[in-house]
Amino acid sequence: MHILISNDDGYLAQGINALAAALQPYAQVSVVAPDKNRSAASNSLTLDMPLRATTCENGFVRVDGTPTDCVHLAITGLLENEPDMVFAGINHGANLGDDVLYSGTVAAATEGRFLGLPAVAISLTGSDPKHFDTAAHVAVNLLRKIQAHPLPEDTLLNVNVPDVPLDELKGYQSTRLGQRHKAEAVIRSSDPRGHVIYWVGPPGSEQDAGPGTDFDAIRNGYVSVTPLQLDLTRYDRLDSLRDWLAMETMP
Amino acid sequence: MHILISNDDGYLAQGINALAAALQPYAQVSVVAPDKNRSAASNSLTLDMPLRATTCENGFVRVDGTPTDCVHLAITGLLENEPDMVFAGINHGANLGDDVLYSGTVAAATEGRFLGLPAVAISLTGSDPKHFDTAAHVAVNLLRKIQAHPLPEDTLLNVNVPDVPLDELKGYQSTRLGQRHKAEAVIRSSDPRGHVIYWVGPPGSEQDAGPGTDFDAIRNGYVSVTPLQLDLTRYDRLDSLRDWLAMETMP
Amino acid sequence: MHILISNDDGYLAQGINALAAALQPYAQVSVVAPDKNRSAASNSLTLDMPLRATTCENGFVRVDGTPTDCVHLAITGLLENEPDMVFAGINHGANLGDDVLYSGTVAAATEGRFLGLPAVAISLTGSDPKHFDTAAHVAVNLLRKIQAHPLPEDTLLNVNVPDVPLDELKGYQSTRLGQRHKAEAVIRSSDPRGHVIYWVGPPGSEQDAGPGTDFDAIRNGYVSVTPLQLDLTRYDRLDSLRDWLAMETMP
Amino acid sequence: MHILISNDDGYLAQGINALAAALQPYAQVSVVAPDKNRSAASNSLTLDMPLRATTCENGFVRVDGTPTDCVHLAITGLLENEPDMVFAGINHGANLGDDVLYSGTVAAATEGRFLGLPAVAISLTGSDPKHFDTAAHVAVNLLRKIQAHPLPEDTLLNVNVPDVPLDELKGYQSTRLGQRHKAEAVIRSSDPRGHVIYWVGPPGSEQDAGPGTDFDAIRNGYVSVTPLQLDLTRYDRLDSLRDWLAMETMP
Repeated sequence: MHILISNDDGYLAQGINALAAALQPYAQVSVVAPDKNRSAASNSLTLDMPLRATTCENGFVRVDGTPTDCVHLAITGLLENEPDMVFAGINHGANLGDDVLYSGTVAAATEGRFLGLPAVAISLTGSDPKHFDTAAHVAVNLLRKIQAHPLPEDTLLNVNVPDVPLDELKGYQSTRLGQRHKAEAVIRSSDPRGHVIYWVGPPGSEQDAGPGTDFDAIRNGYVSVTPLQLDLTRYDRLDSLRDWLAMETMP
Repeated sequence: MHILISNDDGYLAQGINALAAALQPYAQVSVVAPDKNRSAASNSLTLDMPLRATTCENGFVRVDGTPTDCVHLAITGLLENEPDMVFAGINHGANLGDDVLYSGTVAAATEGRFLGLPAVAISLTGSDPKHFDTAAHVAVNLLRKIQAHPLPEDTLLNVNVPDVPLDELKGYQSTRLGQRHKAEAVIRSSDPRGHVIYWVGPPGSEQDAGPGTDFDAIRNGYVSVTPLQLDLTRYDRLDSLRDWLAMETMP
Repeated sequence: MHILISNDDGYLAQGINALAAALQPYAQVSVVAPDKNRSAASNSLTLDMPLRATTCENGFVRVDGTPTDCVHLAITGLLENEPDMVFAGINHGANLGDDVLYSGTVAAATEGRFLGLPAVAISLTGSDPKHFDTAAHVAVNLLRKIQAHPLPEDTLLNVNVPDVPLDELKGYQSTRLGQRHKAEAVIRSSDPRGHVIYWVGPPGSEQDAGPGTDFDAIRNGYVSVTPLQLDLTRYDRLDSLRDWLAMETMP
Repeated sequence: MHILISNDDGYLAQGINALAAALQPYAQVSVVAPDKNRSAASNSLTLDMPLRATTCENGFVRVDGTPTDCVHLAITGLLENEPDMVFAGINHGANLGDDVLYSGTVAAATEGRFLGLPAVAISLTGSDPKHFDTAAHVAVNLLRKIQAHPLPEDTLLNVNVPDVPLDELKGYQSTRLGQRHKAEAVIRSSDPRGHVIYWVGPPGSEQDAGPGTDFDAIRNGYVSVTPLQLDLTRYDRLDSLRDWLAMETMP
């Protein structure tokens, strides 16, 4: 089995190094990752500029692009042997609920899935997480389970791991994404030259975070595993939309 | 009604100017858009740098950020009066099938929906589209219909318009997203100094493009309207995932 | 006479528009300028990425590069007819003393001179300057004088204009660059997420600003015109350096 | 003695690591360098965005800015103890003749000199240079000579080292900057999507490269040491410019 690893924190991050080291005993591992932090890059793809790929001393390939660029390049020709699946992470910080929309780590996994491979995004929760060995152990566990019981090709899993020592993990839960309240207000400030600048404000507090959600699993010490889909069509609205389109504009 | 308009082609693009001019007679219009082309920016959000917003002579506000940044800022405090809905576009080129994953225009609408407003992304198909007046007419039609028959707040519509004169439009169809085959191979080249560079290759050809899809509607001359969802949870896999997580790793 | 105009404030800035409008009656004018503010870009040249040039409705060409890129492209093949000289500006704010080292406007002129053309950088002093018509008048004056009494090809002039109504100008002075004290301390701050950030501090106060300097001319209401050189060799040190290199390391 | 080291190839480059290792036995060394390649950044200074500084495992500080930003921050407050001098390099490739205008490595040294410290820029010639130990040896030699026979504070030296084994070095020469012919034409190309792109063309061939120039010293196997100046005033033109300014425009 040949695993492609990427992330959005950049190829030097502790998380991706811990992940690569943990999976290497169980599979061929290729790392293709951004040359710097690209958090919140979402599925951004670089179409108007060329990309450069540099192989580092440790064998990692760094690319001056987004997480999606890295996985796209790796799967469509950069690597000699095409990989069989994609692991993205270990992200420094959670990717829960609505966060997945912006996450570069989830986007790296999505791109793998989009190009035909099973994919797993794995994140360690907390603002300054410490227990990368716990998340690495979870990654190995999932990999060995996948090797024993293959997942369908169209699988895309979003995994979040509590930032605790391994023996404090409560287990695994299959979860749905929770939801946050609306984001907080933009932060208006000024630079030292007196010009107005704006910072994007903090995310909203948890709104739908009850039993069954990823928020809830993490809060209770479980590894949260959420199956994601690529097809954004809202099927349950197709009929009512058809009726609405048929209405007269002026009633 | 107060409408926020944004796009991913930048505030100078013909499409956003056509859209703003068309909607102004029917509602208050505020334009907050990127200061340059940000196609394929997806839902990328700028968290690590401040943003600057400049009001142009024509009243448009340009921001040195992504489409998502623009809508986020506008709704969370940049505009004095909060808007009631978001229109993104008119995009230069289609956003069909899997393209919506990468699209900055769809992301602008998504951010509006995510922050609690009904939102419409509108794109004019073709590689060098001409009939912006057709797409502008479609936008006005949808706006007036929304004013007459309000849509639920959680509505997010992805609209694609064939690049034809208005009288050649066949009508409107409620569609699901089609799918493309895997993207084509990365393009390996070299710069004039002899260093290897890579360009992301072209998207794959259409794979699922039969009746009911957005590809099919456009091919037959209809305006394609696809309802999109924000919740990426794949609900139909929650149970089988629970079973899989419970399996022994070593069978 | 064919004049190339560029700047570092971007092609939309009031200063470059005022300059182009003022010179057009007296010569063929081509504007090639950055697509956004590139102040303090110095002589930075883009070697590792391609550049894109877009012709705007008003005939200006905007380039997604630095001021130096713009002038370099324009003179080495972008324009059909090679220009005869370069005007850079009207810069929003002074370029006096040591500032010229960082200035993108002076760099645009320098690149013109470096590629074989006489070149003039023109700046309007003040933090939020108003009298662009005064600076435009100065530019016309200099152009007509150049047309009447040609300057040597190796001429590079740095012109600063006081921000006053035209009839308050005292005249023109030939000046040397003054000097500032050491720049003030870096400004340590933190972003809304609690991470440390640094802003470059303000420039130092004027140190050598006596009679004969550009600082002094501006303070007294004169247009300051400083002849600049490209050859950075410090000729008066060549001999003492030779002696020093010949010394024994261990005395 | 406390030496600040920076470069324009980025903190991971072989050259800066060789330089830091070589100087460490002879002085306290602090490395503050760009987080990625910033060649041809010239004296570009980041005024409109904040900068972030990260201390790496090996003690190097990487900054998401230009070479000038790095030296500016280091000297105006980032480092606890102010450095006594600046070494920039070892640059991968020559900085000869007109190249110094664009060079980020020379700019790093210039910023040191500008902020009041003696400064040395050191470059290893060749398109893919190998003998970093030769250049490191030259750096140590110069440092020890400076320690034995201090240089004036206003010294700025541009050093180029032939890419040969140490025992093939012919000696040191005090040189002036040579000159190149005009740069070659811009390279017009197109991206895979059919849009026109431009690459800056190669530098011109050597024009003034005779005895006494840096080009000549390198060609003959000598280390080239050029004293540079910061004051760009062309003093020998001040009088003729005064006369020219006094002329009537209409003769």
